[in-house]
Amino acid sequence: MEADGTSLRGVDYSRIFTQAIDRLHVEGRYRVFIDILRNKGAYPNARCFAGHNGPKPITVWCSNDYLAMGQHPAVIAAMEEALHDVGAGSGGTRNIGGNTHYHVDLEGELADLHGKEGALLFTSGYVSNEATLATLAKILPGCIIFSDEMNHASMIAGIRNSGCEKHVFRHNDLEHLEELLAAVDPAAPKLIAFESVYSMEGDVAPIAAICDLADKYSALTYLDEVHAVGMYGARGGGISERDGVADRLTIIEGTLGKAFGVMGGYITADQTIIDVIRSYAPGFIFTTSLSPVLVSGALASVRHLKASGVEREGQQAAATMLKAMFAEAGLPVMNSTTHIVPLMVGDPVKAKKISDILLAEYGVYVQPINYPTVPRGTERLRFTPGPAHDEAMMRELTQALVEIWSRLELRKAA
Amino acid sequence: MEADGTSLRGVDYSRIFTQAIDRLHVEGRYRVFIDILRNKGAYPNARCFAGHNGPKPITVWCSNDYLAMGQHPAVIAAMEEALHDVGAGSGGTRNIGGNTHYHVDLEGELADLHGKEGALLFTSGYVSNEATLATLAKILPGCIIFSDEMNHASMIAGIRNSGCEKHVFRHNDLEHLEELLAAVDPAAPKLIAFESVYSMEGDVAPIAAICDLADKYSALTYLDEVHAVGMYGARGGGISERDGVADRLTIIEGTLGKAFGVMGGYITADQTIIDVIRSYAPGFIFTTSLSPVLVSGALASVRHLKASGVEREGQQAAATMLKAMFAEAGLPVMNSTTHIVPLMVGDPVKAKKISDILLAEYGVYVQPINYPTVPRGTERLRFTPGPAHDEAMMRELTQALVEIWSRLELRKAA
Ligand SMILES: Cc1ncc(COP(=O)(O)O)c(C=O)c1O
Ligand SMILES: Cc1ncc(COP(=O)(O)O)c(C=O)c1O
Repeated sequence: MEADGTSLRGVDYSRIFTQAIDRLHVEGRYRVFIDILRNKGAYPNARCFAGHNGPKPITVWCSNDYLAMGQHPAVIAAMEEALHDVGAGSGGTRNIGGNTHYHVDLEGELADLHGKEGALLFTSGYVSNEATLATLAKILPGCIIFSDEMNHASMIAGIRNSGCEKHVFRHNDLEHLEELLAAVDPAAPKLIAFESVYSMEGDVAPIAAICDLADKYSALTYLDEVHAVGMYGARGGGISERDGVADRLTIIEGTLGKAFGVMGGYITADQTIIDVIRSYAPGFIFTTSLSPVLVSGALASVRHLKASGVEREGQQAAATMLKAMFAEAGLPVMNSTTHIVPLMVGDPVKAKKISDILLAEYGVYVQPINYPTVPRGTERLRFTPGPAHDEAMMRELTQALVEIWSRLELRKAA
Repeated sequence: MEADGTSLRGVDYSRIFTQAIDRLHVEGRYRVFIDILRNKGAYPNARCFAGHNGPKPITVWCSNDYLAMGQHPAVIAAMEEALHDVGAGSGGTRNIGGNTHYHVDLEGELADLHGKEGALLFTSGYVSNEATLATLAKILPGCIIFSDEMNHASMIAGIRNSGCEKHVFRHNDLEHLEELLAAVDPAAPKLIAFESVYSMEGDVAPIAAICDLADKYSALTYLDEVHAVGMYGARGGGISERDGVADRLTIIEGTLGKAFGVMGGYITADQTIIDVIRSYAPGFIFTTSLSPVLVSGALASVRHLKASGVEREGQQAAATMLKAMFAEAGLPVMNSTTHIVPLMVGDPVKAKKISDILLAEYGVYVQPINYPTVPRGTERLRFTPGPAHDEAMMRELTQALVEIWSRLELRKAA
């Protein structure tokens, strides 16, 4: 360091940042966000802005608003009512002015949905996972976490930020999980974190069997039902409701931003655990609470899907039909047992190319899925047909894909 | 561990959780959320639910909807329009279906507000701080972070999660900051993280002088303007606009949930940095994007406050008047140079007691502020008068406080 302090060697920040971006271009996974506006009431139709002169009509095939609840009249009406009753935002954290009656009601409704004593709202599903896992594990001295290798980034963040010892078990592999559980101190607090529906594969966890292991080894269980709430179970309580095992799970986590069509996240559990997270989790405490407008919309959506099964049935029928059409056409549809329809491509550049052609030539919007969302070499297209995608749309889509597959000389199904 | 694996010593999870809650009760800082509904169009009036038979009218004195923009007709109209145009939620992450034209427009507007090349939206100010600081510091090999000791929990979380070497400087203490900067390797990347308005004290950082140090030691700067955006500067660009130093800061961060009255957070910076955070930050990538309804409302709010100064002026006048009344009445008002009016109590039980009496007997809602939001022993009440709190309300409030102060034999101002 020079004596006068003025001629210090400067750090070339800009070069470091530019290199970070260059790496993405080289790997072919630099992300371009497609600029769209969905048309309320006409979903899956939307308008696309990017690179066109004025909005161009497209069909959306990759939304997580699985049941089109984001356009449901009951949801829209509830949001409008809250907007006029209390205004745009909550104006504070849950503790300081931001706890409205809507929040209290929705937490009651969600606790009931999963048959738990209590629930806690977060600004997103991501934050609910990160904040809960990090806090829970910190509260338990010496806690050891067991995490499915395919767990979502938000769970991984929470587990990492907890600073706990962590063991990753092979995806849905009960033997491996038991091996890891058996290898640690029986007296140590333990937590098994996993998902019900894995959203990039479309497969489902063996929840009951994992709960058996949890009982045997005295472990808590944390289940992410983000891609299943609203979608499975007689009242939309997720795979844990469908399988009749909700009461065996310590914590069930969900989102309000996918099948419920709005935005926000939550956990449900017994009252003491809810109180612990409410009292100790920075990601819950130190942030403006969810807008009452969103909470009101989510409340209407959860209530609607508790009572109505037609959306769920329509969605399952659409997914079954699309999988069958893809398979029949020889497209490499992955082995999904759920509403998710992924096509394996295995290369980031090709996946993007297919997506670009679909948008430019066919007005079909499906985003390529690349690393870090999925492992490298497993890049794919992920379709989420909903109750509003009809048979004609599916035929057109399949036809378009078959044409592109042969144009680009892509590998067909085995 | 027993041989058959069935009679393992169980961990008494429930005792550990209960003890965690008991600690809060013992310290007198167990938080009870007051259940309210604000009345749109009649702010600061609201209805309170908890522990009453039916809603009871109250006056809110602790909202961070500082300018009552959450009730502004332009904001409500914009949200209603988006609700009817595109529906409730975005239906996806920014990369996968959740990038709407509203998002693109608001990012442009925010970049312009702070005179930066680009902006990036997050689901909250909390997430913007956590995700940006953690990611930025990870991208810069060997980065050392310098953090004001009063920094918000969300910045602390981001810094901790970055895993970087961190040095905490005494609050607003330039000499201490320079001492710490001078003591480390001049060739190491450095980042100084601080706030403009510290929201629990009401004081302001010496931004220009911190930028001088950043230049001298070749450090990047990260400024949290959460409590200043919309509130200071000719267009609401915050203290950095008021002081004419926005262009000297590397990153300016803000919220859409306080003065802008809605919900969400953002950063602004040069385009390369925005692209790096957009491409690498898990808290940005792996979450459903902000509801277009919120984005539309925030867009209207930002645009309105860029052009209109009456809300800012009304708010400053109200804060000045309330501080003067408190001081005149001998109440221990803290030394704030901003719109925030904190009264020092110094004890969590007494702070809660005052707040309870205000709510039960005077229909005044102001939340006690306790640890971990402020250090132990500095518990306080924090008033945020806005343009809609009139002189009569302030006189009543001051009178109520004087009565309670003598009833509880509390310490008056020195
Ligand atoms: C499995 C899983 N968990 C959590 C999340 C986060 O939920 P949210 O979008 O509400 O933040 C997502 C997707 O975004 C997810 O796929
Ligand atoms: C200084 C500061 N930064 C960030 C935040 C978080 O912003 P948001 O409420 O939008 O999450 C807050 C308060 O909530 C804050 O006081």
